[in-house]
Amino acid sequence: MSLDGFIARPDGRTDEVHAWYSQGDTEVQMPNHDLTFKTDPISAEVIRESFRQLGANVTGRNTFEDAQAWGGQDPMGLPSFIVSHHVPDRWAGPDSPFTFVTDGVARAIALARSAAGDKAVGVAGADIARQCLQLGLLDEIQLHLVPVLLGSGIRLFEDSGSGTIGLEKLRVVETAHVTHLWYRVVK
Amino acid sequence: MSLDGFIARPDGRTDEVHAWYSQGDTEVQMPNHDLTFKTDPISAEVIRESFRQLGANVTGRNTFEDAQAWGGQDPMGLPSFIVSHHVPDRWAGPDSPFTFVTDGVARAIALARSAAGDKAVGVAGADIARQCLQLGLLDEIQLHLVPVLLGSGIRLFEDSGSGTIGLEKLRVVETAHVTHLWYRVVK
Repeated sequence: MSLDGFIARPDGRTDEVHAWYSQGDTEVQMPNHDLTFKTDPISAEVIRESFRQLGANVTGRNTFEDAQAWGGQDPMGLPSFIVSHHVPDRWAGPDSPFTFVTDGVARAIALARSAAGDKAVGVAGADIARQCLQLGLLDEIQLHLVPVLLGSGIRLFEDSGSGTIGLEKLRVVETAHVTHLWYRVVK
Repeated sequence: MSLDGFIARPDGRTDEVHAWYSQGDTEVQMPNHDLTFKTDPISAEVIRESFRQLGANVTGRNTFEDAQAWGGQDPMGLPSFIVSHHVPDRWAGPDSPFTFVTDGVARAIALARSAAGDKAVGVAGADIARQCLQLGLLDEIQLHLVPVLLGSGIRLFEDSGSGTIGLEKLRVVETAHVTHLWYRVVK
């Protein structure tokens, strides 16, 4: 997220907010995937820690499409649940690497929890994360705050109008290009 | 600022975003003023550091009114410039502790710079700070990020629509109740 709250430019581009992904020399290998990227050593460890903690992912359809289905499998090689109104033909078969959930976010989270065992469920996509927050299904927020003002674009936190939600700061890890922040959602 | 970008609730109340001002046992005395408050020792030092660095303040009229003129003098006992469309009768005299500037933010900054000598000029009020940013008059941003989601309210960074502004992170100082962030505006 940019300091002024945006996760993408108005045209959806994320050059600035994802810049820290490529600012450094430490290679991060996506688990069970041939994707790699290079970032600073501290951020690399933050990302690897997430990989170790997660057992399943829930992603919104828009994020899934934007990522072009990560080349055909979950980016972390985990059970992958996509919240969508419809199941696209291409990913409809029983051998699909993705489970499309058409009856809502809560159902997707329940399925992902079951698949994750004693590990955590990752939630990606601002809209899905906001829905989870409103439904009381979000336990923690991990935020990557980048030193830029975009001025306009797609906000991580749109006006929800649903009142105050308390947070407890768990941890702050800073690098030159990004400040990683962890919060627990107070319920 | 709340994690979702608000500096006040829709009704202007700042209970949540200013909570860290009263969470702790370390007393901070406002310079040349009988106002005191208690916060945590780290935040107290952050605030005292600001007091030492500042030589004049520029404030928007709304902030001035919300603060009820700080009881009749600048909260830090500094030369105090209020950006306003009109000079209120009550503060119009030559002995007024406030200088009302009716010809714009840039003029107020110029006067404050002159008054501050080799010290910094503080800018308070989201609207005035945004105007300074747009005019290239802001050198640094100091932000106090609090662990709460307000859901709606008055944003610090409204959509400006004026494009990307680069920042350089200078420092992060964390306490349990607030994360203090310093950025340099890249020009």
